[in-house]
Order: sequence, then structure tokens, then C-alpha cells
Amino acid sequence: MNHFTIHPIGIIHTPYKENKEIPIQGRFNNEVVSYLEIKKIYQEGLTDLDGFSHAYLLFYFHESKKVTIVGTPYLESIPHGIFAIRSPHRPNHIGLSIVNIKDIKGNRVYFTGADMLDGTPLLDIKPYVSFFDQVGEENTGWLEKHFKNGAIPRGVIHK
Amino acid sequence: MNHFTIHPIGIIHTPYKENKEIPIQGRFNNEVVSYLEIKKIYQEGLTDLDGFSHAYLLFYFHESKKVTIVGTPYLESIPHGIFAIRSPHRPNHIGLSIVNIKDIKGNRVYFTGADMLDGTPLLDIKPYVSFFDQVGEENTGWLEKHFKNGAIPRGVIHK
Repeated sequence: MNHFTIHPIGIIHTPYKENKEIPIQGRFNNEVVSYLEIKKIYQEGLTDLDGFSHAYLLFYFHESKKVTIVGTPYLESIPHGIFAIRSPHRPNHIGLSIVNIKDIKGNRVYFTGADMLDGTPLLDIKPYVSFFDQVGEENTGWLEKHFKNGAIPRGVIHK
Repeated sequence: MNHFTIHPIGIIHTPYKENKEIPIQGRFNNEVVSYLEIKKIYQEGLTDLDGFSHAYLLFYFHESKKVTIVGTPYLESIPHGIFAIRSPHRPNHIGLSIVNIKDIKGNRVYFTGADMLDGTPLLDIKPYVSFFDQVGEENTGWLEKHFKNGAIPRGVIHK
């Protein structure tokens, strides 16, 4: 098990052509509708996804050509380990976003909350389930200070 | 971009040697402590992860040898699309779990909430951040009826 081969199950289409246009987290920019187009061979796998309002998208950071074990994320001036941040420059270059499903038509899923580049290869879709996915009593490390009192920090909407 | 090569960044050690021993969702079995062991070359990437109580683990379903586009999940008698369930038999065989970090020592991260087999290849760790990861007002499709009134369904602790 030295390595595994994975492949795109589809492509994510967003309005974001460059990194600087992307919201830091997609959920802070809820008005922009994006869509993913899944390969026809996987279309039947979308059955009943329309019952869920939210889903995880796993995708490949195809524009990242490097791995940074310790990096300085947006909002911060000091570096953190790659596993304590969400930088694309990570081993395996796999991204994870939670999106809000708006509509499913054929092999297209329309959603808001995109934070990836147009043309991003899609690896998987998983239903978001609050019973499993919402934990309580949590600590959020270096991010805590930026989100005091539930406020969204200035500048977080766009990089 | 026909395919991508990914590799294990470490190994997840759990008490679960067979599928039948695994909890349906790890968070319903919070007393079992598991650990992951990350490759030494990535150890520095754990810096500051200890500030977070929870993290996503991305891993490879190494024992799944098939892809089922439509499958019948535990709790259900009717099939659903693979992207509306969390079955291992999915394109790309990538798993996602939220775990509760207990301790980090050297290249080992101790946690509760495991729902994967012992020896599972680890692909990534990402910090869990409620500001981004907890959505409100959501629908949970076919799962809704099983979790009425917040109750955990009978038999969900073990497969």
C-alpha cells in the first residue's frame, strides 16, 4: 500500500477563475450558485441526494504544485502545521467543503458555498448529517480568536 | 487529469479487526481510544493541531474491492445512490470521519470516535472548525426518520 490511484468523478464549475477571487470559506458567500457535473457512469449514484440540504464535496487541489508542511494561513502572521490549517499545499492535495444543495438535474448538482476554482476535479460527494457531523464542546485552536462572539472577521469573504 | 496518485501519510490503529466490530458512526462509541501514527516526514505538520478538540480524518477504504453505485445502507431496506450514503464501496474509496483528539505525542495522535479498521491508511487530517462546519436548518434525507427526537436508533452502535 505505497500509493493509490484516484480519478475525477466529475468537474466542479464555479465563477472563480483565480485563487484571489475565492472566498476563504464558501459558506460566507451564499449567493453565488455553482454546479458540479458528474460523469454519466456515476449519475445514478446521485439518487436520493436531493433529500439532503448539505453535502461534503471532496475534490483535488489541481493547481497546487507544492507541499508545505508548516504554513501561514490567511488571518494569521505565524505559521501552523499543515494538519492544523486548510491550505491546498498539503500531502495528497485533497480538499473538503460543505456546500448547500439547491437543485439536481440529470448529472448536474447546483449548489451554493463553493470555495474552489472553476474546473476543479471532483473526487466524492457525501451527505452531510448533523446527527454525525455536528460535535459539541469543541475547541478551535488558533481560529478561536478570529471568530470571537460569532463575528465573521473582516476580509474573510475574499482572499 | 485522468487520474491522480495519492499515498498514505500514516496509519490508523483501532481496536477493530473486522467490519462487524466497527460502530456505524464513531461518535456513538466515545470510550474507545485509537491512535494514528503519522510518517516522520510529516510530523511537523501536526504543530498546533493540539489546540483543536476535533479533526477530520480522511482515509482510504483499503478493504473495499468494489464500487456500488446504488447501495442499501445499514438501517434501511431500500437502496440509495452512493453519494447519498457513506458506504466504503464508492468511487475513489475515500472515507471521512470526525474524531475527538485526546492527546498528541511525537508522531502519534490519540483520539476517540474511530469507525475504521485497524491498519487503515491515513490520507489527511484537517482541523474541525464549527464556524465553518456546522450548518443550520438542514435536511438529512432518508436518515431523518431514523433519528427522530434526537434518539440514537437501536443497533447503531455496532454493525
